[in-house]
Amino acid sequence: MSVLQIGAGGVGWVIAHKCALHNDVFGDITLASRTISKCEKIITSIKGRNNLKDTTKKISAVAVNADDLNALVKLINEVKPDLLINAGPPWVNVNIMEACVLTKTAYLDTSVATDLCSPGQQVPEAYDPQWAFAERFKEAGITGILSTGCDPGVVSVFATYAHKHLFDEIDSIDVMDVNAGDHGQKFATNFDPETNLLEIQGDSFYFENQQWKSVPCHSRMMEFDFPVVGPQKVYSMAHDEVRSLAEYIPAKRIEFWMGFSDSYLNYFNMLRDLGLLSPKPITTAEGITVKPLQVLKAILPDPTSLASGYTGKTCIGTWIRGQKDGLPKSVFIYNICDHKESYIEVEHQAISYTTGVPAITAALLYFQGKWNDVGLFNVEQLNPDDFLALMPSVGLTWQVQELDA
Amino acid sequence: MSVLQIGAGGVGWVIAHKCALHNDVFGDITLASRTISKCEKIITSIKGRNNLKDTTKKISAVAVNADDLNALVKLINEVKPDLLINAGPPWVNVNIMEACVLTKTAYLDTSVATDLCSPGQQVPEAYDPQWAFAERFKEAGITGILSTGCDPGVVSVFATYAHKHLFDEIDSIDVMDVNAGDHGQKFATNFDPETNLLEIQGDSFYFENQQWKSVPCHSRMMEFDFPVVGPQKVYSMAHDEVRSLAEYIPAKRIEFWMGFSDSYLNYFNMLRDLGLLSPKPITTAEGITVKPLQVLKAILPDPTSLASGYTGKTCIGTWIRGQKDGLPKSVFIYNICDHKESYIEVEHQAISYTTGVPAITAALLYFQGKWNDVGLFNVEQLNPDDFLALMPSVGLTWQVQELDA
Repeated sequence: MSVLQIGAGGVGWVIAHKCALHNDVFGDITLASRTISKCEKIITSIKGRNNLKDTTKKISAVAVNADDLNALVKLINEVKPDLLINAGPPWVNVNIMEACVLTKTAYLDTSVATDLCSPGQQVPEAYDPQWAFAERFKEAGITGILSTGCDPGVVSVFATYAHKHLFDEIDSIDVMDVNAGDHGQKFATNFDPETNLLEIQGDSFYFENQQWKSVPCHSRMMEFDFPVVGPQKVYSMAHDEVRSLAEYIPAKRIEFWMGFSDSYLNYFNMLRDLGLLSPKPITTAEGITVKPLQVLKAILPDPTSLASGYTGKTCIGTWIRGQKDGLPKSVFIYNICDHKESYIEVEHQAISYTTGVPAITAALLYFQGKWNDVGLFNVEQLNPDDFLALMPSVGLTWQVQELDA
Repeated sequence: MSVLQIGAGGVGWVIAHKCALHNDVFGDITLASRTISKCEKIITSIKGRNNLKDTTKKISAVAVNADDLNALVKLINEVKPDLLINAGPPWVNVNIMEACVLTKTAYLDTSVATDLCSPGQQVPEAYDPQWAFAERFKEAGITGILSTGCDPGVVSVFATYAHKHLFDEIDSIDVMDVNAGDHGQKFATNFDPETNLLEIQGDSFYFENQQWKSVPCHSRMMEFDFPVVGPQKVYSMAHDEVRSLAEYIPAKRIEFWMGFSDSYLNYFNMLRDLGLLSPKPITTAEGITVKPLQVLKAILPDPTSLASGYTGKTCIGTWIRGQKDGLPKSVFIYNICDHKESYIEVEHQAISYTTGVPAITAALLYFQGKWNDVGLFNVEQLNPDDFLALMPSVGLTWQVQELDA
C-alpha cells in the first residue's frame, strides 16, 4: 500500500502527520510540493513527534509543480499510489484530477477548485470544474471524493446524518464556523493572507426556496450561543458546501456563517476601504508597481508562525431545523477542537487540524473498502454513519445538541 | 519690487494667491518649483479667480531643483527678488538659506528644516540647522524670518502678545490645533501622506521646568471646549513652535496639542500596528521591494483633491495660563477659518489658508519696513502688535477669549 500527498501547507502538515500515525494502513507515504523543503520540514516534525506509527514503512519528500500535468503524471507513475490525497491550493485541483484520470488513480481533496469570489467562480458554480469529471472517473474505474475537510466536509456529513436519522423534513441548514482562539497578534490570517483576504471579500450566496440569493459580505449577521465557546457573532459568507448541500440535501434554506471578532472586522473594513485588500496593481510616486494585497501579505505574520502560540478552541458545526414526527426540531451537531492540544500532537493549530483529520478519516474509509465505490462523490452522497463512527478515533469527537425548536 | 516664491504645494498655492492679491506691494512674482506645471496651475487659478490685483505686474513660472545650490543661486541672481518666500518641503530650507546668504537676499519660511521624528531632528533640535545661520545673516546684512505660518507662526505671535500685554507671569502655553472640517473621505491626510504620517508617529516633546520631556505620540490627551467648533479631543504632539517658544517666552510648561477624531486615530493605530506606516522597505513574495508608507501614499486620496469638497472650520490658537496683577488668569487667543470660504477665495482649504495668510502678513511687514531688521528671527522676537493689526486685512481674524482661571 502507498499514498501520494500533494501540498505541504498547514492542512498538508496535519494530513501528513495523520497519514504517518496510520501508516500501518496507508503504507509508504510520498509528500510532494513545489518546494521540497516544506515536505522535509513536515517529515522532520513527524519524526520529532514520534508520529511514524510503523517505522518499517517509508516516508519521503519529492518536488513537483502541480501546474505541470506531465510532471504530475510522471510522478504518479513513479509512486503508483493506491490513493492520491490533494492538499494543495484550489487552483491545482483540476490538474491533479486530470492526472488521476489519466493514471487511473483514486483521488481525494479538501476544498473546491474555485476562488468563490470572482465572476464564474462563485458559490453556484463552486463545483462545476470538478463535477465535469464525473463520467471520466466512472470510465476510469476510480473513486474520487471531493471536499473531505471540516467545512466543507464534516459539516455536510453532520447534515447528511441529520437528514438520515433526525428529521423528516428540513427547514434550514446553517453551517457555523467559529474560531474562538487567540494567536496573540492584533491582526493575522490563519492561512495564506492573499487567498483568505480575497475570499472573505466575496459576496455571500445562500440557497433559499430553490434559488440562489446573494448579499454583500458581512451584511447578514446573527449571534449564536455556541457550546463551550459561548455566544459569538457570525456573518453569512460564501462557502463551498452550500453548493453541495443544495445539490444533495433537501432544505428550504442553506447558508454558511463564519465568526469574526469586532476587532478583526474593524481591521478588515479599514483595509478594504483604503484599498489595501485590492489585487489590482498600483504604482507609487517612485514608479514601483505592486499589488496592495501582496504588500499586506508581506507584512502580516506568516500564518504558520502562529500555531505555537495559539490558545483557545474552535467550534464548527451544522445547525439543522425542521420537523420530526410532526414536531418542530432544532439540533446543532458540532466538533470542539483545542489549538494547544492540536499543537502538542501534530505541531499545528486547530484550523488545520480540523481539516486534516476528516480527510484522513475519509482516506481510511477508502482503504477499509467503505467509501470506495467507483465514481466521483461529494460527502453528502456517502454513508455518514461509517464516517462519524471512525472520526473520533482519528482525532475529532462530535456531539449532538438539542435546541429549543 | 519683486518676490521669488519657491514651492507650489498646498501652502504655496495660498501664498501665491495672497501674493497676487497684494502685488501692488510685492511687484513682480516668480513662482518656482521642481515641477513647473504645478506653478502654471496655480497661476491659472489666480487669474481664474481674478486675484492678480495689479494686472500690470508680472507673474511667471520657472522650474528649479531646490536640492541644487548652484541652480538656486543662478535663479536668484536672475530674478533679483527683494524677498524670497520659501514654501517648499522641510528638507530644502537649509539649501535655500545658504543661497540667500550667498546672494544677500531676504528670506522667509513657514516651518522647520527637520522631520521632528528622526534622531537628531526632534523638537529640542528643531531649529538647530537654521539657527546655525544667525551670524551669517547678520554679516550678509539681510533679514531672515523663520516659521511664519499658523502653527508654527501665528500661535507664537499670540503667545508673544499675551506675554507683552496680558500676563505678568506665565504658567503654561498650550498651542491647540483642531480641524473640525469634513473632507468626506473615510481616511485622508491634508498634506503629503508620507510627510504627515511619518511626522505624527514621532514622540511628543514638551518643555517643563526648563527641561525637555518626551512621551509617545497620542499618549497625552485632553478634551478642550473650543469656541465655535465645540469640545474636541486633542493629543500632545511634536511641533516646531514648542522649541522657539521655549527659547523666547518664559513659561513653566509649553506644549502642542492636535485634534484627532476617534475614527482618524482608529485608522492611524491600525495602519501603524500592521506596519503600513513604515518607511522601511519590505519585499513581497513576488520579489518586489517597496516602502509600505509609499504604497499607502499611492492609494490615499491626493490631498489637493480634497479642497473642493471640504466643509467646516478649523480652530487654531494658544491657551495661556498664569498671573496678572496678582490674580490667576487664563486666556485662549485663536483664529477660526472656514474651509469653504477659503476655497471660494483662493481655491484651497483652510489648513493651507491659515498657513499662507500669516506668511504673507509677515512678508508685507517686511516690505513696510516693520519686520525688516538685519538678522535671523523667529516670530517670538518680533513686534506682535504690528502683525496682529495687519493680519485681519490679509484674511484671518483673531479673538481673545477669557476663560475661568
